[in-house]
Amino acid sequence: MDEVKVFCPATIANVSCGFDVLGVALDSVGDEMVVRKIPKKGVFITKIEGQNLPLEAEKNVAGVAGFALLEKADYKGGFEIEINKKIKPGSGIGSSAASSTGAVWAMNHLLGNPFSKTDLVTFAMEGERLASDVAHADNVAPALFGNFTLVRSYTPLDIVPIKAPEELFATVIHPQIEIKTSDSRRILKTTLTMQTAIKQWGNLGGLIAGLLQNDYELIGRSLEDHIVEPIRSILIPGFDRVKKASLDAGALGAGISGSGPSIFALSRGRQNAEKVARAMKKVYETIGVEHDVHVSKINHEGVRII
Amino acid sequence: MDEVKVFCPATIANVSCGFDVLGVALDSVGDEMVVRKIPKKGVFITKIEGQNLPLEAEKNVAGVAGFALLEKADYKGGFEIEINKKIKPGSGIGSSAASSTGAVWAMNHLLGNPFSKTDLVTFAMEGERLASDVAHADNVAPALFGNFTLVRSYTPLDIVPIKAPEELFATVIHPQIEIKTSDSRRILKTTLTMQTAIKQWGNLGGLIAGLLQNDYELIGRSLEDHIVEPIRSILIPGFDRVKKASLDAGALGAGISGSGPSIFALSRGRQNAEKVARAMKKVYETIGVEHDVHVSKINHEGVRII
Repeated sequence: MDEVKVFCPATIANVSCGFDVLGVALDSVGDEMVVRKIPKKGVFITKIEGQNLPLEAEKNVAGVAGFALLEKADYKGGFEIEINKKIKPGSGIGSSAASSTGAVWAMNHLLGNPFSKTDLVTFAMEGERLASDVAHADNVAPALFGNFTLVRSYTPLDIVPIKAPEELFATVIHPQIEIKTSDSRRILKTTLTMQTAIKQWGNLGGLIAGLLQNDYELIGRSLEDHIVEPIRSILIPGFDRVKKASLDAGALGAGISGSGPSIFALSRGRQNAEKVARAMKKVYETIGVEHDVHVSKINHEGVRII
Repeated sequence: MDEVKVFCPATIANVSCGFDVLGVALDSVGDEMVVRKIPKKGVFITKIEGQNLPLEAEKNVAGVAGFALLEKADYKGGFEIEINKKIKPGSGIGSSAASSTGAVWAMNHLLGNPFSKTDLVTFAMEGERLASDVAHADNVAPALFGNFTLVRSYTPLDIVPIKAPEELFATVIHPQIEIKTSDSRRILKTTLTMQTAIKQWGNLGGLIAGLLQNDYELIGRSLEDHIVEPIRSILIPGFDRVKKASLDAGALGAGISGSGPSIFALSRGRQNAEKVARAMKKVYETIGVEHDVHVSKINHEGVRII
């Protein structure tokens, strides 16, 4: 096989209580990519549809991730990549992670899977470093594994897949404003009080337990963020109103997706998630904010061949 | 029924990565108590065996917890309590929590269970307030529920029971020195860096996932504490050597039990836990520290009638 077409999912990082360690993959939003083996050494982005992004592989997250893989691979040739970029860059649902992860997963597949999933996360993290100056794994890991993933540790890298309950759905609303990940990191404090930290790890423990025990109410109660949300939400127009509208409409919980500006909500069942979408949409229509809305089942397999 | 005899287990709080939120109950170490309904209103400690502790109910954790229950109960009479105090106060394995919890559980039982388990935790926490100035729940909750418990939130109180894998055993070594819980809290810092906090909630998430997925290796990897252990371990003689000896002997992980001075280790299977006990014991014999050692299966039911 010399060519493969893959879907690589959008992802919600942090998920309220899991700053820098937790992420979850969406099933119906993601990038589509064709990756092809070629005799010439190197990584070449030959086509990008949907968005205006650099074709130079050195400036493209998929290219940079691909180079990281190629450097470790016992392979004399190279790869061509075509990207149908369905996730808007800067939306806060793991746009760069999807392209980076899709590229390295497809390359590994074409080479006969010489690399482990943890290796692939490491390669894709180089794409994240290009996009946001920080080689974080909280979008890359769920894009690759599906479901929720916990980055238990970075040194050494230790990814824990956490299966999501079957009826769990996400609603994501993307206000059409741009927040750079690097900017949204810069405004965060570098210290916190022990009291706040204790609340956070209580909630993260609760969320993991809720997911693994199919306890939707516990999932909802655990979706609290006393650290990042109070600061970052200031950058997001109408955040408090959108969050409140989603909870009033029956969402289990809601918060900022990654570094924003997208706002996510989790709900039990598609119907509830769609009701939440209408409620969120109505807020932005009322206050006049351009937006996209996605409703999606949680993705259970990660990047896949299409 | 007018009288009941109960066993209330010793507990390990914090469990390395769950400072102030996590605890786990032991199966073979605990207080034994007889609680009896009497016509006279009030709580009366009539006998304490094994330790020299105050009989005045107002100065005894079981009495204070009992008063908290009695205040909310629709009951005109009172209770007598006899305590066979098998857990040494100040050992760091939930001595006060066992007596407080045993008392209120037995009283509730004798009254026909008018109170929920969460109510009972609230009452027993008053005993903890007497013992350590802080009404914490991380020993009380596992003493009551058994297994591991996560205190997801204090306001409102939200206890999440986490079932322990069947083959999980604890080894606890108690050096015969006294550290007051209030002192060992005072030396802790009140702020921490975001980087350290992120490591901690990564580990707590990993531990919860490991417990619920029967992943013993993940449990072991998650037993890290970058916050409390580096500070409190200074107060515990030979801590580093005991911890290292336990890991070398095959423990999954080890750390400080509650506020110390006891040191705990978790192991897979009784044989390993006993091997770990011998290794820990040897360190204290070598450096000449008086000690007790306990090896126990994890308790799966909490306080029980005997």
